[in-house]
Amino acid sequence: MRDALLLTPGPLTTSLATKTAMLHDWGSWDSNFNALTASLRQRLVALIDGGEHYTCVPLQGSGTFAVEAAIGTLMPRDGKLLCLVNGAYGKRIAQLTEIIGRQVSVLDFGETAAVDPARVAEALVSDPQITHVAVVYCETSTGILNPITAISEVVAAAGKKLIIDAMSAFGALPLSANNLDFDAVIASSNKCLEGVPGMGFVLCKTAALEQASGQAHSLSLDLYQQWRYMEQTGQWRYTPPTHVMAALMVALDQFDAEGGRVARLARYSANCQTLIQGLQEQGLQSFLPEELQAPIIVTVHAPAHPNWNFSEFYQLTKERGVILYPGKLTSAETFRIGCIGALGQAEMQIALDAIAHALKKMDICL
Amino acid sequence: MRDALLLTPGPLTTSLATKTAMLHDWGSWDSNFNALTASLRQRLVALIDGGEHYTCVPLQGSGTFAVEAAIGTLMPRDGKLLCLVNGAYGKRIAQLTEIIGRQVSVLDFGETAAVDPARVAEALVSDPQITHVAVVYCETSTGILNPITAISEVVAAAGKKLIIDAMSAFGALPLSANNLDFDAVIASSNKCLEGVPGMGFVLCKTAALEQASGQAHSLSLDLYQQWRYMEQTGQWRYTPPTHVMAALMVALDQFDAEGGRVARLARYSANCQTLIQGLQEQGLQSFLPEELQAPIIVTVHAPAHPNWNFSEFYQLTKERGVILYPGKLTSAETFRIGCIGALGQAEMQIALDAIAHALKKMDICL
Repeated sequence: MRDALLLTPGPLTTSLATKTAMLHDWGSWDSNFNALTASLRQRLVALIDGGEHYTCVPLQGSGTFAVEAAIGTLMPRDGKLLCLVNGAYGKRIAQLTEIIGRQVSVLDFGETAAVDPARVAEALVSDPQITHVAVVYCETSTGILNPITAISEVVAAAGKKLIIDAMSAFGALPLSANNLDFDAVIASSNKCLEGVPGMGFVLCKTAALEQASGQAHSLSLDLYQQWRYMEQTGQWRYTPPTHVMAALMVALDQFDAEGGRVARLARYSANCQTLIQGLQEQGLQSFLPEELQAPIIVTVHAPAHPNWNFSEFYQLTKERGVILYPGKLTSAETFRIGCIGALGQAEMQIALDAIAHALKKMDICL
Repeated sequence: MRDALLLTPGPLTTSLATKTAMLHDWGSWDSNFNALTASLRQRLVALIDGGEHYTCVPLQGSGTFAVEAAIGTLMPRDGKLLCLVNGAYGKRIAQLTEIIGRQVSVLDFGETAAVDPARVAEALVSDPQITHVAVVYCETSTGILNPITAISEVVAAAGKKLIIDAMSAFGALPLSANNLDFDAVIASSNKCLEGVPGMGFVLCKTAALEQASGQAHSLSLDLYQQWRYMEQTGQWRYTPPTHVMAALMVALDQFDAEGGRVARLARYSANCQTLIQGLQEQGLQSFLPEELQAPIIVTVHAPAHPNWNFSEFYQLTKERGVILYPGKLTSAETFRIGCIGALGQAEMQIALDAIAHALKKMDICL
């Protein structure tokens, strides 16, 4: 039997080529692996047009580990973060900042609106203690796309530093140092780059990292030390996820072969449109208005029907080889369908057919 | 061409069966993956005879991440750690404890002696502030085996709590809750269990974890929250390294099929003996006396010969498909050869032949 299709925000369905890249063992001290690390770091910097001013610091663990490492390393101990929140991932940044003992102020936009740059500008004027601003590019709780360019402009105008959690956007949505000012962008191996999970990475302004010695709250999550050691030795400080790195390298080859970010965004956008239209035809409504919807993950209103039960629905689509994702909203009953991963039109159709099948089995006629 | 044999302290050479387990994608929210996580946790607890009193908390990242998480979570903010040091890994524990802002006192035994339990007992008497003791079971810097049973006894007699970094020992050397008292044992997927790198795990006394709410210095490295969430939902808090987990599961199947810990130790011991004897026959001397030598990694004196050059030696053995490891001692020029991984007598012979070849090429006649 084939593996189930993962229509989730990640881990995703990856290609067989990406997975077979893991059929080798690498010595973590060996020059072959050092070359792999160096090449991956360069390729990731190139994806944001980072040139000479940015460097890539990969980190073991999930994306959240890399977000915590970026905040903990780049913010001075007496710094203050303005955290822009419109979903669970923004909230998580505020939470971790508090836990690691840095000052944080939250600007909350609810779960159904994008971040409003005008309100960010006001907040920066009213609290001069703020040194850094954090925002989630695509808030995966709902799939909301935040206006990153306008946010970057008001943050730069106020002389503050921007940290972008681009986890589920990186590699698909536009993100270039040529037209955005930011100190750090954080992403991971297993989202739009279509690698496997096990590492995150931070694309940092080198100048910002150079000032970050001794700031981190943690040994393992100290991006400065991770960077220094890698620059000096070519190696990772602690055991790297060698197989995950090898998979990401091959995933990037496929990314390039597909036509890079623009082609990937086009495929995901087509996936997203097919999904939304197909769901509408079945009487299911997506949660976000079109202008807020990133082509990454679609949040769908649970049908207002007495027979609705997400667990049963999930099980029925799973029987057809399609894995969906639960909702993450406090305000409405929803479920989610990812548009990303090594999936195209044929797979979206399989997913829509599985959903139709499940609704029929559940006697839900919309 | 075959992959090079990794005679290193990890990442190791793994079996093809272990690597092919990574040829599937898993939904991290899905019940199949939850079942995999639950089963792995149970199997790891069973390896230390942990019964009802211990629980397994897996963590994303390298083994060091898990060590930091254990110290940071299990030690109260006003706790004090006595850190037993006889190499780089013991030093690392002291370093991370200081960085996360806990009190730490170091008892250093140098690089060539095992930890002396009598001195530990004295230290515990002289400083009643100490709440916890940390020790590395097999200090991978040299391969020294520390007397874990005697250490556990003096720590328990003093009413203190023991945290064991068993990274390179777990799965091969004896470690049972039936005859050792400890609050936590930390290990990782890619050492003697012969999985791939990308996760660590902590086997904790459940009673110790239950008291650890709010103690951690980090969101990502909070073992208490990781455990609570896993117990409540069956899921990982943040994206798990799904492929690494799948590989570890299959690696454990092979561990059981081989005959468990005792059989694995026997294979590694035979590897170690073959190596040491073969090196002696070539005029190379291992660094440790036999009674201190764990059958995990052998530290070898660099030959006292004008032609010696580790880089050249490394390159020459690598050309024969054998990856060795540099030394990590401050006191003597050494290199290291691992005895662990999916390797047996045939591979030890290949390694010895590669070493003989390299020495001959370098005109080093001993």
